[in-house]
Amino acid sequence: MKILLIGSTGTLGTAIREALAPRHEFIGASRKGQPPVDITDPTSIAALYASLGKVDAVVCAAGGAPVRPLSQLTRADFEAGVRDKLLGQVELVRAGLDHVNDRGSFTLISGVLSREPVRGGSVLSLVNAGLEAFVMAAAIEMPRGLRINVVSPTVFTESIEAYGALFPGYSPVPAADVARAFVKSVEGPRTGQVFVVG
Amino acid sequence: MKILLIGSTGTLGTAIREALAPRHEFIGASRKGQPPVDITDPTSIAALYASLGKVDAVVCAAGGAPVRPLSQLTRADFEAGVRDKLLGQVELVRAGLDHVNDRGSFTLISGVLSREPVRGGSVLSLVNAGLEAFVMAAAIEMPRGLRINVVSPTVFTESIEAYGALFPGYSPVPAADVARAFVKSVEGPRTGQVFVVG
Repeated sequence: MKILLIGSTGTLGTAIREALAPRHEFIGASRKGQPPVDITDPTSIAALYASLGKVDAVVCAAGGAPVRPLSQLTRADFEAGVRDKLLGQVELVRAGLDHVNDRGSFTLISGVLSREPVRGGSVLSLVNAGLEAFVMAAAIEMPRGLRINVVSPTVFTESIEAYGALFPGYSPVPAADVARAFVKSVEGPRTGQVFVVG
Repeated sequence: MKILLIGSTGTLGTAIREALAPRHEFIGASRKGQPPVDITDPTSIAALYASLGKVDAVVCAAGGAPVRPLSQLTRADFEAGVRDKLLGQVELVRAGLDHVNDRGSFTLISGVLSREPVRGGSVLSLVNAGLEAFVMAAAIEMPRGLRINVVSPTVFTESIEAYGALFPGYSPVPAADVARAFVKSVEGPRTGQVFVVG
């Protein structure tokens, strides 16, 4: 398969590449990479797809949102999280429908805050849950046998030093385990699924 | 209690008013009413709160999103649904935190598409699920004993003629039953809940 990976340079992107690259042709796009893409900007996504031929799978390991106490969250914080991790990934699907071959797939990234809130995480809870429901809904309307899934991991072992204080009592998972859920989505037959890891 | 109801003139708003008004003081705001409010516009929400004294409960029965087949959805459709039913209601909470008395409450409105998708409903699935997760997350950070819940009804009996074709096999519920879930949220002790009706 020809796989387009968005966010190819991060911890997760690197693990996904290691898990899938041995069996597939890979195109790794990232904000500062080649080809470049900024998922917060629909014109950047359109340009990326226009520059490539058709692919068999689009995989996203990119997207962030502000983490801040509820009492300090601004309207701009909510808009930023929505524009980045939520509508950025939705746009990868919306704009990508005509750029994926029959029976190809989209695999997006959400996270544990959709189901287990933490202090400061209300924007990410909104974003992750919105994304998971979008995937469930979009799956029933996908044309030409296209599939769509989302991987929803808990905190990464690799991030526990930086973010562990936000997640008291959460068992971390290695990025390599999360990458296997992406393999399940890309190479397996399922659609409309939230693949929970951790 | 002094209750601010947003969206007071619709089917649901009218039912909520009938269920709560006998025991409480009511302020009914709506797009074309008095006081006016447009939840898609943060300055309109700020003006509404500034014009009122403190209230004990904020109840929302307003907010829409485009319904359209996935293949026809534009970026603007997603942005419109997010700005209206999702971030419009989030803004009622964010901007309202300092305008609700101690141990007061917010009660928002989502809907069945957060958990059961229908054709053409992917924006609403995203919006409703994002809102429900926001409520779950915001509840753990509410100051001064404030509470927050969301009511998530299936299709209304009153709307079945207009929208029933979108919901094959869904059992409708009368708006009066949905209104009772708002009473449960406003007068009861719970927080961070999704009150499913239907």
